Amino acid sequence: MPQADREAAGDHPAAGAGEAGRAGSAACGGFSRRRMLFGAGGAAALAAGGAATAAALRDGGDRAAAPDPVVPFHGPHQAGILTPRQQHVRLAAFDLGTRTDRGRAAALLIRWTTAAGHLTRGEALPPELEPPGSRAAETGVLAGSGPARLTLTFGLGHAFFDRTGLTAARPEALAALPAFPEDRLDPARGDGDLLVQIGADDPFVTAHVLRTLQRLARGEAALRWTMTGFTAADGRRNLMGQVDGTNNPDARRALLSGPGVPAWLAGGSYVVIRRIRMLLDHWDTLPPTHREQALGRRTADGAPLTGGTEHTPVDLAAVRPDGVPVIATNAHIRLAAPASNNGATLVRRSWSYHDGPRADGTPDAGLLFTAWQPDPRTGFVPVQHRLSRGDALSRYLVHEASALFAVPGGISPGGYVAQALLEG
Amino acid sequence: MPQADREAAGDHPAAGAGEAGRAGSAACGGFSRRRMLFGAGGAAALAAGGAATAAALRDGGDRAAAPDPVVPFHGPHQAGILTPRQQHVRLAAFDLGTRTDRGRAAALLIRWTTAAGHLTRGEALPPELEPPGSRAAETGVLAGSGPARLTLTFGLGHAFFDRTGLTAARPEALAALPAFPEDRLDPARGDGDLLVQIGADDPFVTAHVLRTLQRLARGEAALRWTMTGFTAADGRRNLMGQVDGTNNPDARRALLSGPGVPAWLAGGSYVVIRRIRMLLDHWDTLPPTHREQALGRRTADGAPLTGGTEHTPVDLAAVRPDGVPVIATNAHIRLAAPASNNGATLVRRSWSYHDGPRADGTPDAGLLFTAWQPDPRTGFVPVQHRLSRGDALSRYLVHEASALFAVPGGISPGGYVAQALLEG
Repeated sequence: MPQADREAAGDHPAAGAGEAGRAGSAACGGFSRRRMLFGAGGAAALAAGGAATAAALRDGGDRAAAPDPVVPFHGPHQAGILTPRQQHVRLAAFDLGTRTDRGRAAALLIRWTTAAGHLTRGEALPPELEPPGSRAAETGVLAGSGPARLTLTFGLGHAFFDRTGLTAARPEALAALPAFPEDRLDPARGDGDLLVQIGADDPFVTAHVLRTLQRLARGEAALRWTMTGFTAADGRRNLMGQVDGTNNPDARRALLSGPGVPAWLAGGSYVVIRRIRMLLDHWDTLPPTHREQALGRRTADGAPLTGGTEHTPVDLAAVRPDGVPVIATNAHIRLAAPASNNGATLVRRSWSYHDGPRADGTPDAGLLFTAWQPDPRTGFVPVQHRLSRGDALSRYLVHEASALFAVPGGISPGGYVAQALLEG
Repeated sequence: MPQADREAAGDHPAAGAGEAGRAGSAACGGFSRRRMLFGAGGAAALAAGGAATAAALRDGGDRAAAPDPVVPFHGPHQAGILTPRQQHVRLAAFDLGTRTDRGRAAALLIRWTTAAGHLTRGEALPPELEPPGSRAAETGVLAGSGPARLTLTFGLGHAFFDRTGLTAARPEALAALPAFPEDRLDPARGDGDLLVQIGADDPFVTAHVLRTLQRLARGEAALRWTMTGFTAADGRRNLMGQVDGTNNPDARRALLSGPGVPAWLAGGSYVVIRRIRMLLDHWDTLPPTHREQALGRRTADGAPLTGGTEHTPVDLAAVRPDGVPVIATNAHIRLAAPASNNGATLVRRSWSYHDGPRADGTPDAGLLFTAWQPDPRTGFVPVQHRLSRGDALSRYLVHEASALFAVPGGISPGGYVAQALLEG
């Protein structure tokens, strides 16, 4: 279908839609209330404004029965940070179009926020959400599939602020990550203006939700990269066979609060995403003791090599009778330990990926590592500096993609993600 | 590690392994019993022969506790044909190396069969299974993960018979599929000497099992292509939003039996695999009624447009008052119906795939369609000929890869897949 045809406003099924059309009374600073839902540049069929738009659309939507389990989308923090990790994830970054501005970005985030509210409740999307002139619509793909603990978590990248005229509001902590010595980053799979982390216990749900966000972004933002991850049903091991995620701090420690935090970030976080390929064909050939020493934990149960069980604190000072440290000086858990990094704390929330063989026959497999913290400059950055300089495990890892996003605070019913920033 | 180092026989941890070394008494025609496990060409550290090898290795293996649910690997048919479809699949084809022969192919199939027995019971692999000289070994990745209804189903492609000197034994039904008018096939993702269908309810299990088979094949067979599929938790819909799989015949109708069937194929089947990309960006723009007419079923519940529920038989003769057939002349369910195809019956067992965006931004998503039948010449071929000439649904589908495999009959404890062919 030609683009001109699709942009013909009269073709939009929502023209004259009642619920949305009546919702124009909410506070909305800085740009026109009208046309907000589809941005200042489109042939917006809806007269709609600000925060109330999302609520009105939601209330007017098709309320299918919402099966459990439902993870509430609204709250003081975005869902997907404190939520226990789901078995499937799609991570995706979008870049805003060249014609974007603050109003259009807000309109996109309103659409996404509104859709997220419906999707996480297992509801079909109301037709009013479709971009004006688009004939594309909800096809009922998820009818019968529960939300399966679906969460959508949105983040803003460094360039988002320049593209929306909000450069002055960009936090210093969102500065580009430094280069690390062993990085082999593919820029096409890193960074991005907007992040969406889509987690659910059903791979069909994550796949379709990503497609839905992509459809709702048409004309405003294009997919930059996407990555697909999963865990084992019990979620304990990574593809190297290691018990992973031990001693993860309380996820609340990743959240931002306090007087210096801008309103839009309060209750939010910073997330670093690293696509870490594992050199599994090499790893497999190592003697089991070598594998355990590189990590500093037993393969069988994840206990530190200084003894106990998985959750026994590691004794970094322990030495063997010959004076050699039990936990090698280059063992991963020594270099990554908060005690080795001025107390730096990372909340890790990672998934495995296995996208099949690479051109050379080796597996395109590893970890979609996400690290959450209140400030990457005192979190991921110093820890990764230490690891990249001597971690025994890094010989079997290749960091192939990297991104950093500010994750705005939670969303109230009727609000939308980053509203306080965009209407500030 | 240099290849020469890895092939040094003395490096193999199983040299002199007791259980396997004593197992040399079983019937094994046509080639040397010795060296069978690792083929005639390698520095075989194991003196091992024929059918007993698999059993001996299995009995001598590390018997970890086997969690439920376990789908029995042994039986009159290979698991994965009659087994209710699992939520995750990895389909993979391997090509034998240029130095292959009947003995080496048998050795590979013995290793795979033995590994499959362990893996489907949730057991670690015994070190004796590793190729000679290889330092690669089981790293405990699946420790703690159940087999999750894991099945491995093996098939033989057209070229397998030439490569193993068994051209005379190739069934006529395994002739290459004809070209269909709308095919846009990528040869690199089609065909192959050997097929493995790896199904399980845990994506971590399917990913690791494929890697394990790849490791065990090292030096003998290389991965040709692999595809990853999934279903929704309830398994009912495809990514077009259609209720899919309705009116699937009893899977036993796909099985081969009778006097004309060679012993190795008795209880087996033929499987056609088609990677069918869906033009979802186009499909989404169609009016809902158009989508329903293309299929011939209601989107909401999968009932035929002639009424009833999903499982009500379709009335292909029904006409509207104006004389137009209720089920359009080009509706998918009309053209695919057995009544339209001389009673041809296909047992369908398909998964969705969504590998992210293609270079043009459209989704690389669709259906990994597998069709099982006792003879593709009276099964898939005539049905696809009809569909490719006028099916309304085909306008939104692109067949991108195609393969046909003969699936040998079931495996008895102590036997291995295709044993009756390779020792015939």
